[in-house]
Amino acid sequence: MARNAFYAQSGGVTAVINATACGVIETARANRGRIGNVFAGRNGILGALNEELIDTEQETAEAIAGLRSTPGGAFGSCRYKLKSLEENAKEYRRLIDVFEAHDIGYFFYNGGGDSQDTAHKVSQLGERLGYPITCIGIPKTVDNDLPLTDTCPGFGSVAKYVATSVREAALDVASMCETSTKVFILEVMGRHAGWIAAAGGLARRHGDDAPHIIVFPEVPFDDHAFLGRTRDVVEQDGFCVIVVSEGARYADGRFLADAGTTDAFGHAQLGGVAPVLAQMVRDKLGFKFHWAVADYLQRAARHIASATDVEQAYAVGRHAVELALGGRNAVMATIVRTADQPYAWQLGEAPLDQVANVERTMPASYIGADGFSITDAARRYLEPLIAGEDPPAYSGGLPDYTVLRNAAVDKKLAPFEA
Amino acid sequence: MARNAFYAQSGGVTAVINATACGVIETARANRGRIGNVFAGRNGILGALNEELIDTEQETAEAIAGLRSTPGGAFGSCRYKLKSLEENAKEYRRLIDVFEAHDIGYFFYNGGGDSQDTAHKVSQLGERLGYPITCIGIPKTVDNDLPLTDTCPGFGSVAKYVATSVREAALDVASMCETSTKVFILEVMGRHAGWIAAAGGLARRHGDDAPHIIVFPEVPFDDHAFLGRTRDVVEQDGFCVIVVSEGARYADGRFLADAGTTDAFGHAQLGGVAPVLAQMVRDKLGFKFHWAVADYLQRAARHIASATDVEQAYAVGRHAVELALGGRNAVMATIVRTADQPYAWQLGEAPLDQVANVERTMPASYIGADGFSITDAARRYLEPLIAGEDPPAYSGGLPDYTVLRNAAVDKKLAPFEA
Repeated sequence: MARNAFYAQSGGVTAVINATACGVIETARANRGRIGNVFAGRNGILGALNEELIDTEQETAEAIAGLRSTPGGAFGSCRYKLKSLEENAKEYRRLIDVFEAHDIGYFFYNGGGDSQDTAHKVSQLGERLGYPITCIGIPKTVDNDLPLTDTCPGFGSVAKYVATSVREAALDVASMCETSTKVFILEVMGRHAGWIAAAGGLARRHGDDAPHIIVFPEVPFDDHAFLGRTRDVVEQDGFCVIVVSEGARYADGRFLADAGTTDAFGHAQLGGVAPVLAQMVRDKLGFKFHWAVADYLQRAARHIASATDVEQAYAVGRHAVELALGGRNAVMATIVRTADQPYAWQLGEAPLDQVANVERTMPASYIGADGFSITDAARRYLEPLIAGEDPPAYSGGLPDYTVLRNAAVDKKLAPFEA
Repeated sequence: MARNAFYAQSGGVTAVINATACGVIETARANRGRIGNVFAGRNGILGALNEELIDTEQETAEAIAGLRSTPGGAFGSCRYKLKSLEENAKEYRRLIDVFEAHDIGYFFYNGGGDSQDTAHKVSQLGERLGYPITCIGIPKTVDNDLPLTDTCPGFGSVAKYVATSVREAALDVASMCETSTKVFILEVMGRHAGWIAAAGGLARRHGDDAPHIIVFPEVPFDDHAFLGRTRDVVEQDGFCVIVVSEGARYADGRFLADAGTTDAFGHAQLGGVAPVLAQMVRDKLGFKFHWAVADYLQRAARHIASATDVEQAYAVGRHAVELALGGRNAVMATIVRTADQPYAWQLGEAPLDQVANVERTMPASYIGADGFSITDAARRYLEPLIAGEDPPAYSGGLPDYTVLRNAAVDKKLAPFEA
């Protein structure tokens, strides 16, 4: 009899991680006989450790199809990193107990760098502990920082959201600048790399369109250069639109968001780099400003997801199951770009031990010589990733997102004592 | 020969104010012979004072049609309030000079409360100064605070954006709450009234859906009640989604956003009520949190505009021209609701002197007894306003917004010396 599969979502969720879940489950269902039930982990790997499994068999085909256009993580996610086998063998034995109890022979783990590390460690259950399991990583992260894949599902949709928002807000500021707001600052995610900030640059169609300034974490922040450019842009165009990465930092490594502000009680003031830049613009240049912090809105915005991203998210889920059924193990499904224009891609694989804990940085060639813009090379890379629209169904004026039953699988073991 | 029209946009712009411009210009073009060229004011009434007129005749039919799905103010807006005739007769004489020089016999002013006040004052050119002009106000404001109209174009689209964003971000937080973020706070516009915050309440479909807490400017903020509710919700549901109006304030009138935070140099810290609540949640409850400030993104988000709002925005523009051609004067075009369900509405009019400087507040009956939610009455009012989708055209993955030529009309007068 075909062995069951475990699938879980890990790390920060995205607008399209459920499209990957949809790809995994639909492909498994299409291969009944070769693969059994798909049990989803409630809150990622914690679901395996705590034997909190969700029986996806109890979901209708319609509900599973609905995952394709529902943001967030339908089974719950977690930020939890397995220790090494040497450091915490108990956790690995527990995983074997749970997997054995539920006849789990396939492990699909959907996440970013830390999650691929977990997938890699779980693959050691087979290699080092003799428990027979096929282990496949599935990429996901808005940070776009996994190696050996052209892009990470989740990123394209954030990129589209950010570029669209910049284009829209810029039209607003352009209208108001004569008598009101002259500087608008949008803070976007990307603590370690400027991929998302760079995507804001796609809003520009012509030479002097917004955004006028992009503040990358890769470029040490220079107050003087930033303020000078802001002043010049306002003098020339009447207004200035700025995209800033939450990871913007000074040459000494200090984040701008930790700029030492305190509240009335002397407590450190909580983050946000946009208000820090706004304060700087007001104090040094005197311009009226507005700022926005998109935060979770950007990575949850399924309503404006990139059709390319949705398709790729689904495809890596499907491919993960195909890889497992094809006898592959300890690999991550990948996206391979074969042409920029017209854009073409196919599916591939990469060994988990080469993916885990390797962070892909943004090429220096993607940042303009001025340090505040993106290059044509960046555009060639980014543009295909935001292409196409794939709106969700609406009812009553709002996206009609799917909520699963998430029925628990009966537990067979005593609780885990960590 | 038919006299020309002046049309201008005033105050904060919206996702649909250009749909109104489209309605005005297309209707004027359909009535050539009865109405001449439409000259748009560059930056609102300033365009009239400075004789900076835009010749909309030079725009193609396609470009004008494109305004229907382009956010921001295509001709520029302004925050500028005319003084009274007694205080500054010079401005009124200047308006007459400019209108006479360009044979302007129709004045269409598109804005909120202050703008309707300006429209009302301009109507005095006829009544008190003998210059023959037909003066029609056209409603616009995301604040939804104009009297004598069921709603204000611009509001429905912000409402849809906010409700959608809350529903999406809530799915994100629900996924993460087991090991990470437990409280998410979204700050929305509405300095004086909670209309936009209330719209966030539409994200809730079932009893315990997000948003769990709405902080209205109408309800004096009570730290104890807010923190208690937040703690209870997290304990019960695992996470808490909060929508807060930028106008949230204490019983003594102090805005939460002005909570006395200072930067490293002792300067007052710039606004944002969301980070203030976040700080409170961290310090008093210890929960991990995220916060977002939508700012201009919410009112510029044409990509998720309400089809009802777009239709009404266009209709009030069309109706304004029809009112003028029908001999009406010193009135504002209005939207009249004739039924909640199924929703039905028609166009109407209200005297400018009854509209100017009157602010419509949100009925107390729209706020739940707990002070943190909306009532069924609020739902009945709000739901129709977000109904329907009317996405813009996309190209290259981004909304393809229209940019006008905005050709200047030749000046005939010496510069205005205010």
